Amino acid sequence: MALKTKEEYIESLKKMNPTVYMFGEKITNVVDNPRIRAGIESTGATYEIAHLDEFKDLVVTESPLINEPVNRFTLPPSSIEDLVARVKINRKLGNYVGTCHQRCTGLDCLSTLSIVTYDIDQKYGTNYNQNFIEYLKYIQKNDLTANAGVTDVKGDRSKNPSEQEDKDMYLHLVERRDDGIVVRGAKAHQTGSLSSHEVIVLPTRALRKEDSDYALAFAVPTDAPGLIHVVGRSTLDMRELDGCDVGNTRYSKYCPTLIFDDVFVPWERVFMCGESEFAADMVVRFSSFHRQSHGGCKSGKIDCMVGAALMAMEYNGTAKASHLKQKVIDMIHRAETLYGCSLAASYEGKPEASGTYFIDTVMANASKIHEGKEMAEAIRMMVDICGGYVADLPSDRDFENPEVGELIKKYMKGAEGVNVEDRIKLFRLAEKLALESADTVSDIHGGGSPEAHRVTILRETDLESKKKAVRRLAGIED
Amino acid sequence: MALKTKEEYIESLKKMNPTVYMFGEKITNVVDNPRIRAGIESTGATYEIAHLDEFKDLVVTESPLINEPVNRFTLPPSSIEDLVARVKINRKLGNYVGTCHQRCTGLDCLSTLSIVTYDIDQKYGTNYNQNFIEYLKYIQKNDLTANAGVTDVKGDRSKNPSEQEDKDMYLHLVERRDDGIVVRGAKAHQTGSLSSHEVIVLPTRALRKEDSDYALAFAVPTDAPGLIHVVGRSTLDMRELDGCDVGNTRYSKYCPTLIFDDVFVPWERVFMCGESEFAADMVVRFSSFHRQSHGGCKSGKIDCMVGAALMAMEYNGTAKASHLKQKVIDMIHRAETLYGCSLAASYEGKPEASGTYFIDTVMANASKIHEGKEMAEAIRMMVDICGGYVADLPSDRDFENPEVGELIKKYMKGAEGVNVEDRIKLFRLAEKLALESADTVSDIHGGGSPEAHRVTILRETDLESKKKAVRRLAGIED
Amino acid sequence: MALKTKEEYIESLKKMNPTVYMFGEKITNVVDNPRIRAGIESTGATYEIAHLDEFKDLVVTESPLINEPVNRFTLPPSSIEDLVARVKINRKLGNYVGTCHQRCTGLDCLSTLSIVTYDIDQKYGTNYNQNFIEYLKYIQKNDLTANAGVTDVKGDRSKNPSEQEDKDMYLHLVERRDDGIVVRGAKAHQTGSLSSHEVIVLPTRALRKEDSDYALAFAVPTDAPGLIHVVGRSTLDMRELDGCDVGNTRYSKYCPTLIFDDVFVPWERVFMCGESEFAADMVVRFSSFHRQSHGGCKSGKIDCMVGAALMAMEYNGTAKASHLKQKVIDMIHRAETLYGCSLAASYEGKPEASGTYFIDTVMANASKIHEGKEMAEAIRMMVDICGGYVADLPSDRDFENPEVGELIKKYMKGAEGVNVEDRIKLFRLAEKLALESADTVSDIHGGGSPEAHRVTILRETDLESKKKAVRRLAGIED
Amino acid sequence: MALKTKEEYIESLKKMNPTVYMFGEKITNVVDNPRIRAGIESTGATYEIAHLDEFKDLVVTESPLINEPVNRFTLPPSSIEDLVARVKINRKLGNYVGTCHQRCTGLDCLSTLSIVTYDIDQKYGTNYNQNFIEYLKYIQKNDLTANAGVTDVKGDRSKNPSEQEDKDMYLHLVERRDDGIVVRGAKAHQTGSLSSHEVIVLPTRALRKEDSDYALAFAVPTDAPGLIHVVGRSTLDMRELDGCDVGNTRYSKYCPTLIFDDVFVPWERVFMCGESEFAADMVVRFSSFHRQSHGGCKSGKIDCMVGAALMAMEYNGTAKASHLKQKVIDMIHRAETLYGCSLAASYEGKPEASGTYFIDTVMANASKIHEGKEMAEAIRMMVDICGGYVADLPSDRDFENPEVGELIKKYMKGAEGVNVEDRIKLFRLAEKLALESADTVSDIHGGGSPEAHRVTILRETDLESKKKAVRRLAGIED
Repeated sequence: MALKTKEEYIESLKKMNPTVYMFGEKITNVVDNPRIRAGIESTGATYEIAHLDEFKDLVVTESPLINEPVNRFTLPPSSIEDLVARVKINRKLGNYVGTCHQRCTGLDCLSTLSIVTYDIDQKYGTNYNQNFIEYLKYIQKNDLTANAGVTDVKGDRSKNPSEQEDKDMYLHLVERRDDGIVVRGAKAHQTGSLSSHEVIVLPTRALRKEDSDYALAFAVPTDAPGLIHVVGRSTLDMRELDGCDVGNTRYSKYCPTLIFDDVFVPWERVFMCGESEFAADMVVRFSSFHRQSHGGCKSGKIDCMVGAALMAMEYNGTAKASHLKQKVIDMIHRAETLYGCSLAASYEGKPEASGTYFIDTVMANASKIHEGKEMAEAIRMMVDICGGYVADLPSDRDFENPEVGELIKKYMKGAEGVNVEDRIKLFRLAEKLALESADTVSDIHGGGSPEAHRVTILRETDLESKKKAVRRLAGIED
Repeated sequence: MALKTKEEYIESLKKMNPTVYMFGEKITNVVDNPRIRAGIESTGATYEIAHLDEFKDLVVTESPLINEPVNRFTLPPSSIEDLVARVKINRKLGNYVGTCHQRCTGLDCLSTLSIVTYDIDQKYGTNYNQNFIEYLKYIQKNDLTANAGVTDVKGDRSKNPSEQEDKDMYLHLVERRDDGIVVRGAKAHQTGSLSSHEVIVLPTRALRKEDSDYALAFAVPTDAPGLIHVVGRSTLDMRELDGCDVGNTRYSKYCPTLIFDDVFVPWERVFMCGESEFAADMVVRFSSFHRQSHGGCKSGKIDCMVGAALMAMEYNGTAKASHLKQKVIDMIHRAETLYGCSLAASYEGKPEASGTYFIDTVMANASKIHEGKEMAEAIRMMVDICGGYVADLPSDRDFENPEVGELIKKYMKGAEGVNVEDRIKLFRLAEKLALESADTVSDIHGGGSPEAHRVTILRETDLESKKKAVRRLAGIED
Repeated sequence: MALKTKEEYIESLKKMNPTVYMFGEKITNVVDNPRIRAGIESTGATYEIAHLDEFKDLVVTESPLINEPVNRFTLPPSSIEDLVARVKINRKLGNYVGTCHQRCTGLDCLSTLSIVTYDIDQKYGTNYNQNFIEYLKYIQKNDLTANAGVTDVKGDRSKNPSEQEDKDMYLHLVERRDDGIVVRGAKAHQTGSLSSHEVIVLPTRALRKEDSDYALAFAVPTDAPGLIHVVGRSTLDMRELDGCDVGNTRYSKYCPTLIFDDVFVPWERVFMCGESEFAADMVVRFSSFHRQSHGGCKSGKIDCMVGAALMAMEYNGTAKASHLKQKVIDMIHRAETLYGCSLAASYEGKPEASGTYFIDTVMANASKIHEGKEMAEAIRMMVDICGGYVADLPSDRDFENPEVGELIKKYMKGAEGVNVEDRIKLFRLAEKLALESADTVSDIHGGGSPEAHRVTILRETDLESKKKAVRRLAGIED
Repeated sequence: MALKTKEEYIESLKKMNPTVYMFGEKITNVVDNPRIRAGIESTGATYEIAHLDEFKDLVVTESPLINEPVNRFTLPPSSIEDLVARVKINRKLGNYVGTCHQRCTGLDCLSTLSIVTYDIDQKYGTNYNQNFIEYLKYIQKNDLTANAGVTDVKGDRSKNPSEQEDKDMYLHLVERRDDGIVVRGAKAHQTGSLSSHEVIVLPTRALRKEDSDYALAFAVPTDAPGLIHVVGRSTLDMRELDGCDVGNTRYSKYCPTLIFDDVFVPWERVFMCGESEFAADMVVRFSSFHRQSHGGCKSGKIDCMVGAALMAMEYNGTAKASHLKQKVIDMIHRAETLYGCSLAASYEGKPEASGTYFIDTVMANASKIHEGKEMAEAIRMMVDICGGYVADLPSDRDFENPEVGELIKKYMKGAEGVNVEDRIKLFRLAEKLALESADTVSDIHGGGSPEAHRVTILRETDLESKKKAVRRLAGIED
């Protein structure tokens, strides 16, 4: 069966041999590195829940392609139900792992390719869609995770790809060979690249004809020769390496930069090569799908923060404070807003030419605009409710110190009847939820930066009909 | 056929004989009073569109009760599709009339009664649901409009109904007779009461056993003896009476207070009488349905304001100003947020025991909380974009004045090529959209005041599951 | 003595003979027209308080120019104390009249001219400052009110003045004669033009050399030949004409458009004529002074709205509701923010070359940006607290109706012990505070539209020093 | 002379011998511990600038007490000028160090004691003010830094101090001896306790008679026997210990918990002991002064973030993007709002009975309410402008790695002509500004939690005068 267990998933990663650097050192045993492992565990949850009664009806479905049950994270949506399930499972997972599970971007790429390869083939008689279908079968049969190689490092933002001083600032075609292509460039913010078996590369922006060497879509394994993962810093990374004060005792997130130092891609894994006018479509589809995904997982993360706030109120003895309840309401309201707009975007989806369903982009972007502002507000309110120890709680090592440990614990005591260790654990989790940069910065920049969502909304809205209605009411003749 | 034309609807109102006071005078010809007529025209649009190709598929449906096509505004939802259609038709209508069409509250009452009368009967073996079904058939067969007699005047808000010095501050049972009941009290903010054939009365709040005389639900015609409509002031009411500077050349809104001065209700039109524990359910159902309705019509009104803003940019010569475009995006974002949450609340609806579908209350209230704050922001942005003449445009009578009319017009000229009369009309419409109190105050208080939505969200959210997820992540044992 | 009483002020207006149109009719007795009179009363309050113990220390000061006590509204600031007094007296007046007192714009013009005429003379050897000093003496000796003719009607906003199809879209020089100049054009939103003895005209924008005919500053009496006042509509204007349901029983505001149909100005009243490079300075000075003024009067108006909210809580029986108290805090916070920034802008003022003091523009604009957004929020919260009768209260004429008046009053009863007439009056005042367009739209557009404040802040801030500090901290070498 | 150099300050700390734990270990050489040293450097800047031409006029003043020049951070304000200088020097320092300089809390305590000890003596004939004056001379003569021991750990927040299960949850009197008192308890969030020579303890809340053992104010050296500093975790602490990727290359902040494990205080250093009714006054004075301080330093930190945003725009090639400029304006607007309200609070200050000046609390709290919300917004906007590398930039160790360092740098290149190392440094600084928890959480909880500021505003505002003004306008008789 195509459904791996979490353990099988981790075993499968152990068999890979990616090139990885972190904090100046080469990492050879990726799976057992505690920093990276915490992220792998998070993606692992997407495998685990496929076998848990509470979740499996939502996450397991039949693939018409391979006629087997598959994990939804390998299935481009072919119905409204599929679109809706994406959001619902993301919310549940967001709450389950309290961070990013890192498996949605791969699905967002698969869904995008499922639409656009078909359209390119229609225009050019190319064979990309067939390549894609075969690749998708491979993904589904092996229950693989892919990450999205979309965001180029971009160099000078005031210039187009081919205008850059260094042409490698956007990933591009270096050589076209009989058996495939060679590519060079770098992709930033590659969340979960080492939790993934595959990287799927799409263009990061609309392209003009003169930039056609940059119009590439393809997939390679994450340990392909020439591919280098450089795991970036995040605020709490040393806690995980150190095994102390981690906060979220189970899961985390990390974000490498991925360098494609002349990587070879065989033709059967190429899904676009030079058709520059489809780059815009690729990026709009991907980012819209990804914004829809966020509406689920981020509302799930707010659910966690609401839970943390409520627990803190109990532990601090402030459960009855009306001004704190008002803040809890404000947090819930934000979760439901992200979720509601993303759900509506899904229910209002429509089939594309290839049969894959696409969402309503205006409402998906409406959800993301809220995320970009309101996650920060939800965090602020959780910190307000929890109190100052989110910032400066003594270390677990202090609590264990034989000289002063008990003394410190004595003073960390909260409401009567509350176990002091539990209160300490809660504050530590709140710190992680509020201040892990790998997680929180994606509220702003994940799925494209805030201005991108706004521009999309303006472009996709039917402005003329609104003007026409107004002229009628004002009595202005058309 | 059950579908009246707009003309038939107006004719049907002419046959009624309600008791009406406005600005100190008794009004006898209601339909031809220009202030009230503008509101009737607005409700008339709900009849008109049932015969327009662009709308009729959405607004006309088959009633299983009378096996005839009916207007959706007479149909309690019996499917997800019905729930969703409510929101969509409200958005379209909001954009079509640029104000409140005043027919949704009646449907919200019918939908509520369709659920709660069934539940009361289950508990008490009463016959309310049958009364209701017969009443509903009558409404559908005659394509009638009803308004919602929900909001009592309330007297001293710190006291329960039966604690009030004057017991009439909440509508209550005065006499129980063989043939029916006699009721007394007053309902405030009765939008469209004179555009309606019927008033459906529900309780305004949860009630305790000692308040059971206040636990009433029933329907009476709007010209029932003892029923007095007092049309309140609104900011622009004199413009309509005067026939000048009306802004919205077609539609408006008015809000009477409705006094029940010992009104008789026959038993077959009584839907609750004394079952106080169901009052809360009545009010929660009604207000949730009504908040869902607002998510449609108010986003439609923002659509109008977006249209007005865009037209103003064209007329003023500011179409290219990037800061104004940003504000247009902010306006659209608000419309889509109200709409998205309300749509999601509908798609996530579920059947109740009676078979009627009910919405997800958390998301319906999430939509309404946004309305309570964001409509004011949308208005502010439209005024910002349009400019100061929203506030102090000379009167049409000035423009017609032979001495100075042409001179004034000369100075009202906007961008080259724009007809000055059109620009004047647009500013006048913007004034109406921004500053008609009958319309804008309902953004805040319609469907219950803001705090009510917040309390509902907290009460209806599953807080325990969020706390549990957090304990698992923090490593706190349950 | 230079200090008129309110009665003397009104008498002095009666002697003037301005050309006025309103709602299509020519108005001859301006002072007794109830709509205009309500505005005159508001300006009258600035005269009245000069004789009231509670206010006079703040509003009366000695003019070094005429060595007599004068009303501060005729005194360009010559010290920090003067700058601060402007804000404080405006806040007190805002609270005293509950609307715009309409006398600050004249002072803002005088203060501007006091700086810029001096600077022009320094450059060109002109005699504008002497003209201005003589004019100022005249104003002070007679305790006159002036209004600010600044905002041109602007025509096509995408074009400069001299590029307009109709050259009159910005007020300009038509003829230069031996004894003076003839000007043509129109000024919009001329708040209080008929409560004023004088109109002082300044340019509305920065001008280029080719627009030098538009670089004009001068003063004329409000009844100068060729000057036409067209009083625009506002939401509640008919209430005042009708003498019923006025809300604010003492004061109001109105905003004419002022047409200069070839008006002659003698040379001694010309303060700039053609020096186009000083137009920007004129408009920046004026608008900064005016934004500082708003920080006072608008916080005073919020004080009124806070008072109305608190009274409504008492009258409704909701004085103990914690969520309403939170909203009151939010309202006060907004008032103090406007006021604090405006006060700080004053305390940080500096003398200009002429000796007149100028404010800190960044903080004055910071105050105004808050006004542009937060007045709407304060209004929204007041309406939330007061309840729905702000929108649709029956008319006083209904209450007086012998048939139903008592019945309606019965149902308007609020908390026990509250006089129902008082509650009705309060709601009517709240309606006026919230929904009088002449008043509320100036929160957005008064003193220049919101984007103007933002651009000013960016231009006036020392960005380089902030960048330098950052380079030092990051370890980047300069 | 009383003015230490930065070097002398650091030397003076080296002579102290505090008891310190951090991350499970006892720290003996505090000054050379890189984590703590970064904080000491920040306080050191307050000494350094007293000798720098750019700053010294603002920070050095004459003390009337010792008739010598002193650093303002040792001088309770005795004039409006002193109050204003506090805010201005804080803003400059906030910009200079890009974090908290940690010396304001001591001054806030000295200023508080300077008022309240006098008032207690007036009532009880005690000798606290004389004790305080002597202590103040000692501080001034030796140019010492003190930190504020105010925030108790609080235990169960629903209970008063004496109701707690463990009486030590608020610091209290254990023994009253002939030569002094013994105290026990713990103070949380003791920013800069190891950068200070002294800790000044004040009560954390209003107290009732039965809590008089908790009504204590006193001072002890930071290395007093029984005093234990436990340095808490913060997000980026390991970077400093590790000497890599620190971001702010000069300064930082740390926050210990301070345990008073039976600490002896001689009587001459006791400033309150048992006068419970003055506890409220202590805490209100202290927190108001501290909120005023924040209005300076936090606006200075926003200045840094504006600088970082502007540099990022240059480095990324996005300097011309209008939507980013709008965000810069929004950031500046927030800085000026905090600053303006805090300045106004200072200018409007008044002398207390002791001669010390106190600020306007309403405007000081208005400033702090903005901080609690708007710092988070300013951070969010800076991150938006900088881009995703704020979250996941590779480590400096990666850039130095001989195998891949150059390759990584190649891809970090920004706009043409920009040094890649500078861009990397800038992103690292932005990360520190945005995500250092020791710094950012104080935006919310420093100077008391948000609700405290709100309650203060409501309590300190004259509500009756606002209600009275409204009754006059509405025509309601008093």
